Amino acid sequence: MKTLRVNLPGREYDIKIEKGIFDESGSLIAKIHPKCKAAIITDSNVGPLYAKRLIDSLENSGFSPFLVTVPAGESSKSIEMLEFLYSELLKQGITRTDLIIALGGGVVGDLTGFCAATLLRGIPFIQIPTTLLAQVDSSVGGKVAVNLPHGKNLVGAFYQPKMVIIDPLCLETLSDRNFSDGMAEVIKYGVILDEHLFCQLEKTSSRTDMMEIIDDVVLRCCDLKRMVVEDDETDTGGRMILNFGHTFGHAIEKKYNFTDYTHGEAVAAGMVMAAELGEKWGITLDNSSERIRRLIKKYNLPDRVAIDKQSLADAVAVDKKGKGNTVALIVPEKIGKVIIKDTEKNSIWTQ
Amino acid sequence: MKTLRVNLPGREYDIKIEKGIFDESGSLIAKIHPKCKAAIITDSNVGPLYAKRLIDSLENSGFSPFLVTVPAGESSKSIEMLEFLYSELLKQGITRTDLIIALGGGVVGDLTGFCAATLLRGIPFIQIPTTLLAQVDSSVGGKVAVNLPHGKNLVGAFYQPKMVIIDPLCLETLSDRNFSDGMAEVIKYGVILDEHLFCQLEKTSSRTDMMEIIDDVVLRCCDLKRMVVEDDETDTGGRMILNFGHTFGHAIEKKYNFTDYTHGEAVAAGMVMAAELGEKWGITLDNSSERIRRLIKKYNLPDRVAIDKQSLADAVAVDKKGKGNTVALIVPEKIGKVIIKDTEKNSIWTQ
Repeated sequence: MKTLRVNLPGREYDIKIEKGIFDESGSLIAKIHPKCKAAIITDSNVGPLYAKRLIDSLENSGFSPFLVTVPAGESSKSIEMLEFLYSELLKQGITRTDLIIALGGGVVGDLTGFCAATLLRGIPFIQIPTTLLAQVDSSVGGKVAVNLPHGKNLVGAFYQPKMVIIDPLCLETLSDRNFSDGMAEVIKYGVILDEHLFCQLEKTSSRTDMMEIIDDVVLRCCDLKRMVVEDDETDTGGRMILNFGHTFGHAIEKKYNFTDYTHGEAVAAGMVMAAELGEKWGITLDNSSERIRRLIKKYNLPDRVAIDKQSLADAVAVDKKGKGNTVALIVPEKIGKVIIKDTEKNSIWTQ
Repeated sequence: MKTLRVNLPGREYDIKIEKGIFDESGSLIAKIHPKCKAAIITDSNVGPLYAKRLIDSLENSGFSPFLVTVPAGESSKSIEMLEFLYSELLKQGITRTDLIIALGGGVVGDLTGFCAATLLRGIPFIQIPTTLLAQVDSSVGGKVAVNLPHGKNLVGAFYQPKMVIIDPLCLETLSDRNFSDGMAEVIKYGVILDEHLFCQLEKTSSRTDMMEIIDDVVLRCCDLKRMVVEDDETDTGGRMILNFGHTFGHAIEKKYNFTDYTHGEAVAAGMVMAAELGEKWGITLDNSSERIRRLIKKYNLPDRVAIDKQSLADAVAVDKKGKGNTVALIVPEKIGKVIIKDTEKNSIWTQ
């Protein structure tokens, strides 16, 4: 079992990664938390596949688990669903010394994490990510949030889990589309921080091949995220590079009502947009923009999405990286290196 | 001007206290934050009295203030009102480098603070408390929250303000009932930590007399709260003593739908209940229980409120200080000293 230690003062935690680790969840959690009630929050896709096994594992280690299921999909990342969770957990008599466990993908992790951050002013929580996107990105680093009608992740907190348990075998139950969804974030890590990883992805040509190296890829992405988060937990400096592709990606998701494109698909197209803008501005060099575009297409992700400038401008206006009239755009210089470029909100398209 | 410095690592801030300081708010804030948009959140009672003066003061110091008003009263501490605030602030294009200012009493401070803690994952905020309750208690220490149908303050965060500006002259516009409301928290500080303060209150007999020593009383209460909070920011240890009277107080507020009794009135009756329980258990000595009851009556607060045991038990069940089957009750030993007594939830009334 590989262990990464995230060192945030007073909020340290381990990320445990290994194929087949899922059924050891109960005993892993028992090492860091006394026996208690354990609320498992999952969704209607993941629950039927994994909830029973997790309940068994927790019960075998002396915990008292109970299950709360939300509908699968981005629309569950809402204040309405949050109120549902608050109510269900309070009905079960949860207290601040109990546990909340997120079992699922990015939506479940973000929603559950924000619920845990705010219910009774904070209840310890554990991430057990079951999608590639959640395993390589959203389950690590403590960013939790729900969406508002105005945009994605506009209400949230920085709230670190007590442990992240990653079993790459869970990825076998993903659809091809959902697997590709996560590949967008893997590609992102290659572009922003790791040329070697990017080249590995260029050499791999199928999901089957990718599953052979998946332990290393997940470990590498988590380790990169760990480094970035340790350096800038609250996203005011270096952590912003993780936002590469996301400002435009969020605009795409919103424009298509969070339904036509997955988060990864939107971010993929957003990365191409940012790289091509960078090229136009003379920042992105060495054919990097074209290499990004090709890699994205290879993993069945969209390199172009039809979107009008007004929708983009509206999204930029409410981007959390905004400071007054400017927004921090992440632009690649070359594969493995990006810069944060403070850009006038109104001049992005005219510069 | 008196300044208290709250020393929390990375989240230090000043409490400024002086009669007449209100109109200096803009220049005080300008010393700690660059010019920006400043969202003033207030309520329908306080707005007409103070909003214009605050807007003028902020504009004179180069800020761009705008006003959002919520209905006065505890019912505004809701998730629904929170969504209203999120929406209003986003419409005005607020960003993470702007400011949110709470202008009002405890409801406005708690609601605004939780909005600031969660919108865009955190926007800096300032407390300008205008009620006695908010000046001596709720504006200091970073506890922010909204209520749920299940109980008070069940959703919240620990989120420190960047500054607290306290002008005791604002108290002159309070009704007698609202003034008494705050006196309950002042009495609480006497009971839990400061016999000298308690004796001062016993010697003072009218609101007019109290206003003559109010600067010192407010300063003393804030300083006591500062000490407690520095020692235990997240309320897992010593900070729990601030909860004296509150477990039963919350039960009373809920039972009467947050309308018949003010927070202070409910806490006052709750303090008498806790002291009388303590007396029954042989913990509360020296006629302390009777002294508390008399002082509470002198400040026109209720020493008894009709409430059934089931309502109390229900409130204890969801109290945030619960740990599994026990709840931490705060019980006085004598005036100026309380203990935290972990008590079986089911045996409080039979012990």
